[in-house]
Amino acid sequence: MDCKKYIDERIGRLKNIMSEKGIDTVILKKPENVFYFSNFNPVLNSHPAVMIISLDEEPCLLVHSIRYVHACEEGKIKNVKIYGKWGANVPLAIHPVDAVRTLLGKRNRKLGLELDYCSAGFCSEVDDKLCPDEVVSISSEINMMKIIKDPYEIGCIRRSAALVDKGVEVTIDYLKQGYSEAEACTQGQYAMRRMWHEKFPEAEVCGFGTSEGGMIDSLHVWCLSNGHIAYGCDCPRHYHPQPGDLTLPMAWAKTDGYHAENERTVIVGELDSYKQNAYDGMLKARESIFRILKPGVTFEELYLAAAKVYSERGFDSILPGRVGHGVGCSAHEFPSLERGNLLRLQPGMVMTVEPGLMDKTWGGVRHSDTVLITEDGCELLTRFDTGAIVIECGDLRAERAD
Amino acid sequence: MDCKKYIDERIGRLKNIMSEKGIDTVILKKPENVFYFSNFNPVLNSHPAVMIISLDEEPCLLVHSIRYVHACEEGKIKNVKIYGKWGANVPLAIHPVDAVRTLLGKRNRKLGLELDYCSAGFCSEVDDKLCPDEVVSISSEINMMKIIKDPYEIGCIRRSAALVDKGVEVTIDYLKQGYSEAEACTQGQYAMRRMWHEKFPEAEVCGFGTSEGGMIDSLHVWCLSNGHIAYGCDCPRHYHPQPGDLTLPMAWAKTDGYHAENERTVIVGELDSYKQNAYDGMLKARESIFRILKPGVTFEELYLAAAKVYSERGFDSILPGRVGHGVGCSAHEFPSLERGNLLRLQPGMVMTVEPGLMDKTWGGVRHSDTVLITEDGCELLTRFDTGAIVIECGDLRAERAD
Repeated sequence: MDCKKYIDERIGRLKNIMSEKGIDTVILKKPENVFYFSNFNPVLNSHPAVMIISLDEEPCLLVHSIRYVHACEEGKIKNVKIYGKWGANVPLAIHPVDAVRTLLGKRNRKLGLELDYCSAGFCSEVDDKLCPDEVVSISSEINMMKIIKDPYEIGCIRRSAALVDKGVEVTIDYLKQGYSEAEACTQGQYAMRRMWHEKFPEAEVCGFGTSEGGMIDSLHVWCLSNGHIAYGCDCPRHYHPQPGDLTLPMAWAKTDGYHAENERTVIVGELDSYKQNAYDGMLKARESIFRILKPGVTFEELYLAAAKVYSERGFDSILPGRVGHGVGCSAHEFPSLERGNLLRLQPGMVMTVEPGLMDKTWGGVRHSDTVLITEDGCELLTRFDTGAIVIECGDLRAERAD
Repeated sequence: MDCKKYIDERIGRLKNIMSEKGIDTVILKKPENVFYFSNFNPVLNSHPAVMIISLDEEPCLLVHSIRYVHACEEGKIKNVKIYGKWGANVPLAIHPVDAVRTLLGKRNRKLGLELDYCSAGFCSEVDDKLCPDEVVSISSEINMMKIIKDPYEIGCIRRSAALVDKGVEVTIDYLKQGYSEAEACTQGQYAMRRMWHEKFPEAEVCGFGTSEGGMIDSLHVWCLSNGHIAYGCDCPRHYHPQPGDLTLPMAWAKTDGYHAENERTVIVGELDSYKQNAYDGMLKARESIFRILKPGVTFEELYLAAAKVYSERGFDSILPGRVGHGVGCSAHEFPSLERGNLLRLQPGMVMTVEPGLMDKTWGGVRHSDTVLITEDGCELLTRFDTGAIVIECGDLRAERAD
């Protein structure tokens, strides 16, 4: 599916917002937002791409010379300009803000910037060199636009969801055979890569860059056990899960820029009654969310439904801060399923549902699914084994190391 | 090797700089810098960690509640404080800047911030809530500190270098057997993961997070062929290299936060004379850099040495913008091997040497090595096959797909 028409639609919607707010020009630098309006992901962000959208001019994608061929061939913006010297390309200027000034000129204008993302240095350079009448934040308007996914985006997330289902399934298979966390994750990642080759060879699996690097491969699996679960995110260790453990493999993937995740807590052998109560509570908390997950419900109601289950089971003191979040180009996108969020669900939203508990003394419990809100309810995009998952002790490889 | 003493040394050196410049407190948010002064990498950065270093107070690592256990157990800073509600932890405040105000109070002080990284919104909130006398940039001072690596850092980069050597070696092996770019990279990554398990099981292989996500696995291999090389960085494709092609597998890895890279241009069969001239030029350009690579030489001299070789061979119009860059916690760290950079090499610097050419009409040539500057010269940390690399056509698998 070609995304060009959706890119055009997004730019059109942004221009409507700009008209309403009297904003003449929006300058975007956040890699996920530049991608959203151009389909161009430089992968590395140490030479950032800039998207310039004016009410009365053609949208412009401004990239470093070294990214020019890539931007022209994979971006969906006709008007590509360059800054910085590399090879035969003739840049507008060496530095990006000078190039923006060459493009826009100094004139009275109201500018929209991502004030929660763009550095203070960049914003003050824009102020000095473009001399706008006024600078306003455009981040929350873009966040609001991005929460409803179009069919192209849903297609991408669906593919990513198929990959993470595979990643978690294979990782659990290897944990069952007594492999260490890290070894099992390696097998899960390898299986995701092979599925990419076989099922989705046309998709890109890159992520988005930091200010000094990039993410070339986004197909990741990791796994935490027991007290380590309380880290939330970390590198898997060379630990072989033991009877009585909770172990939590997690797979994340992006295809063509769009994220999905599947996270599953696995019971090894038999749990003590405290952990079993937490695990059962987690499954009930999920049920209580899925029971009401449809358009019209508020994000807070989803949180409260899960919190109520945990409270009744005695976990009031360790309630999670949120029980899920939007996903899209980012793993953690706006908005959160949390107390105080009165936004209502709408068809086309995609989010994780992951009411969990974490405590360093005993571990934690969490299943995370990637879920699409439909006209009259929801659709799980991740489907692998949504209930209790148990590794019987007899399955663990006899010769495991420790 | 425990890095605690090096973290203490770094904080001591920063405090000396602060004293000289009359800066009372530095507040850091860039994940790579927070890690440099704390050894804490949250992996995900959607709830950012903040490092606060004052001349007259104990250094403080401020993290979101969800990262508290991780920060306490893996960071090397005793004084860990929290913001944001999650579980049983009692935060100083919900938002990070409010927590900073609680810690520091409103009082006359000169503040150092990463003005090239911290968002305009964050900086203006700091201004409003902390009411400093003055805010100055601290980024270039930290960049300068970071260019000389200590023995702990060199040890980490050495491990990463061993991994990327393996990644490129195995990828080339599979390309030889006729596998596609993407398939060969999958095998390269898989080999790096297994080498991690076997040789460096105690190391973490995570990267650093973006504002809405993170990099859980940093062991990446990718490969570009022919015109695609002009993208610089992109997802490998399901393309099977053909006789006459240039194909360029690249491996990047981080262990315990420190990056190394190995990139190798491979000749498939026989090249036409234009490409062969470029390839030979690349090897000569490398030689001309390695010949002078020792303390005292300027970064510009390295650039000019390579540029001269390319100019003599007729490539004046497509000279690269730089022929290498510093590496450390980032893939692309300060400084660049470029025209105009009069900084002189010193022992302990680590950089890539990668004089290359790229052009979409015929492809590109580049070997990249990770190199340590020693007392009297340099040491290649990446060692796999630094000369011409050729896949004979007879090696290509007969049954390859296209």
